Amino acid sequence: MTMVNAFDPNRASGLEAGDAALIEHRSKVLGPAYRLFYEEPLHLVRGEGVWLYDNKGRAYLDAYNNVASVGHCHPKVVEAVTRQLGTLNTHTRYLHERVVAYADRLLGTMPDALGHMMFTCTGSEANDLALRIARSFTGRQGVIVTSLAYHGVTEAVSEISPSLGGFVPRGPRVRLIPAPNALTVPPAEQGAKLAADLAAAIAAMRADGIEPAAFIVDTIFSSDGLYPDPAGFLKPAVDLVRAEGGVFIADEVQPGFARTGDAFWGFQRHGLVPDMVTMGKPMGNGFPVAGVALRPDLVEEFGAKARYFNTFGGNPVACAAGMAVLDVIEEEGLQDNASTTGAFLKQGLKAIVAGRDDIGDVRGAGLFLAVECVEGGAPNARLAGHVVNHLRRNGVLISATGPGANILKIRPPLVLRRAEAERFVEAMQEALAAH
Amino acid sequence: MTMVNAFDPNRASGLEAGDAALIEHRSKVLGPAYRLFYEEPLHLVRGEGVWLYDNKGRAYLDAYNNVASVGHCHPKVVEAVTRQLGTLNTHTRYLHERVVAYADRLLGTMPDALGHMMFTCTGSEANDLALRIARSFTGRQGVIVTSLAYHGVTEAVSEISPSLGGFVPRGPRVRLIPAPNALTVPPAEQGAKLAADLAAAIAAMRADGIEPAAFIVDTIFSSDGLYPDPAGFLKPAVDLVRAEGGVFIADEVQPGFARTGDAFWGFQRHGLVPDMVTMGKPMGNGFPVAGVALRPDLVEEFGAKARYFNTFGGNPVACAAGMAVLDVIEEEGLQDNASTTGAFLKQGLKAIVAGRDDIGDVRGAGLFLAVECVEGGAPNARLAGHVVNHLRRNGVLISATGPGANILKIRPPLVLRRAEAERFVEAMQEALAAH
Repeated sequence: MTMVNAFDPNRASGLEAGDAALIEHRSKVLGPAYRLFYEEPLHLVRGEGVWLYDNKGRAYLDAYNNVASVGHCHPKVVEAVTRQLGTLNTHTRYLHERVVAYADRLLGTMPDALGHMMFTCTGSEANDLALRIARSFTGRQGVIVTSLAYHGVTEAVSEISPSLGGFVPRGPRVRLIPAPNALTVPPAEQGAKLAADLAAAIAAMRADGIEPAAFIVDTIFSSDGLYPDPAGFLKPAVDLVRAEGGVFIADEVQPGFARTGDAFWGFQRHGLVPDMVTMGKPMGNGFPVAGVALRPDLVEEFGAKARYFNTFGGNPVACAAGMAVLDVIEEEGLQDNASTTGAFLKQGLKAIVAGRDDIGDVRGAGLFLAVECVEGGAPNARLAGHVVNHLRRNGVLISATGPGANILKIRPPLVLRRAEAERFVEAMQEALAAH
Repeated sequence: MTMVNAFDPNRASGLEAGDAALIEHRSKVLGPAYRLFYEEPLHLVRGEGVWLYDNKGRAYLDAYNNVASVGHCHPKVVEAVTRQLGTLNTHTRYLHERVVAYADRLLGTMPDALGHMMFTCTGSEANDLALRIARSFTGRQGVIVTSLAYHGVTEAVSEISPSLGGFVPRGPRVRLIPAPNALTVPPAEQGAKLAADLAAAIAAMRADGIEPAAFIVDTIFSSDGLYPDPAGFLKPAVDLVRAEGGVFIADEVQPGFARTGDAFWGFQRHGLVPDMVTMGKPMGNGFPVAGVALRPDLVEEFGAKARYFNTFGGNPVACAAGMAVLDVIEEEGLQDNASTTGAFLKQGLKAIVAGRDDIGDVRGAGLFLAVECVEGGAPNARLAGHVVNHLRRNGVLISATGPGANILKIRPPLVLRRAEAERFVEAMQEALAAH
């Protein structure tokens, strides 16, 4: 599918001369696979907390970027990275205390069954490694994902990322099931429906001679349109894939690290224990670090016979960044803040859309919210596009997602406070009023 | 195959109590897929230039690590990363000048035919992306690599990395050809033999209904045992794969960024223009950054229909690190140094092994050298293991490689100077004398 909220150079108008030249130069050297956000791309030069600043000094309230999760350029993370960069930066084939301490600390946030932590640089690599281990352990190839899933960009994980569109190959070993749907499926039936769809996909796969190795989901279904509720609905499907001999991989690249407020990891909201948990984006507040937590028995044979080395993965600097992020989340009470400011934000949004027939739903968990734009029950991509670009012109950043390109995706750094949430709601009201 | 120079916990003896406990804790939390180097693992705490320091304050001359290529903790790289980390760290969906300038500068080191630069975080991701694009462009699946190639750890590139051993799946779309061999193939025949082996692999692949999409090699054959000479021998094979409708991918993760002294990229020594060039390890002196330079036509359809986004790839901090590395290579004349100090080192090594019947060859280009340990013409892994561990105890770091685990791999940071090269030769002499 076409990327939601992508800049279209053929419809560009009113670009400042310097930016137009930069866009042209960029296109020449980076080529056609790169996309920019917004009808009018944003030329950023500085960031601090929840604020980003463009080349003309204008401030933007960032309500979209989950990578700089503890705030853009957090001084504590910058300092930790700087100190370690100037001291030692090697790799995991030498002994170093911090990679052990960091793995220990991450595992401390997990159920006891997840006993090992392996480091990569990106969420794509983490999901790719999880698939390699799942396939090796089960001796099977099949993977089931939701219909607009996104799990990354390596060959193996792009195959399980239908949100990249139909041009990206998806072989017979991958099957899609419908994502949850807040508008058409009653909440109490969400869990049973997901499990029934999974059972059907497994049966169809088996009819082609392929056995299920893994069921993998983003535990908040970010690219499908954000479906956090009712918490617990994932469990029947997870129980099912295990009963069928496959493993369950919780992709926590988006929901993880305290974003949902009520839990540190998205799977915890569903009252289940995954076989593997993959993580990335906010883990180093922008420093490239990611990883997989997993059940020790899954990697026993793989570890002995295949080994795993990732040159930069888990190096002393990556671990310094990751440790600093965990410190800041604790010290600044960011999980609590995600919960309280998130609830405040959701209430504010619900209040301003009350009575509007072009908003089908406001949902979310913590500081990860969705506003669904509709028109007679159908997706309303035009309204979503209007809101995203109106907000951008008005100094507030979000994006949109979902199969109908109609679901506003609101995912600010976790340091968003009440006054900024108020400003956000006000800007949303202005955007909706202008439609 | 078993990893050369891996620590064996079952044969550990004489470990200091603190290190023994750390190794045990590490094994518990990181699991069995991780390996440490050396009979007695090294517990490093600090690095500077070509020197690494352990937790007891002992200095080691680093003659192995090519990631910290401009020297451990180079202040200019640390400063550039620190400055950008404290200013802005977003991603490529916002306009930023540096990613364009950096791509431009990298492309400036390449033949004109390579017009686009795409960024990833790791060499694995770069090779994985190159394969995706090659397969998409050619509409074919087959890939040919050398028999002990290493191209990374994602599912797709582990499939073309036979050096990871037989447990890692290698499907019918991957074929192996013998690597060059300095002892059994006369230099003048190296090129014709490689092309003939490639032709045979393509024919065998076609007999199974698989067409060749790509031929990919590390242009200095690092994991196969280091085969730089005679420069130019790669060209007939590259011409052949193109004539057969496939593309040639030069994996420059190890030879790139001035290491070979006589060229900035390994492929340049062979007088050829690749269709794609992948790069990584030394690119950010330890900051995770990697990428692919490629012919624009290869990515035209892929870019329009599949797009490519890598969350951390080419972010402002990664580009700051990469720019600083290019600055240092230029300002400190490191390509020239690789050439002159590398030649001096090779001469010194040749001098001390002259007349020894247990050293079959000393070869290399710039600061990437190999010393081949033999016994009656066969690989002598015992001698290689002795030298590697004797050097380590004597304060000098190298490792070993090759199918017989008998080829010493000498690959210091590019800032190695003459006095340190002399120290290295002296330590090698001591190690050989002690055998």
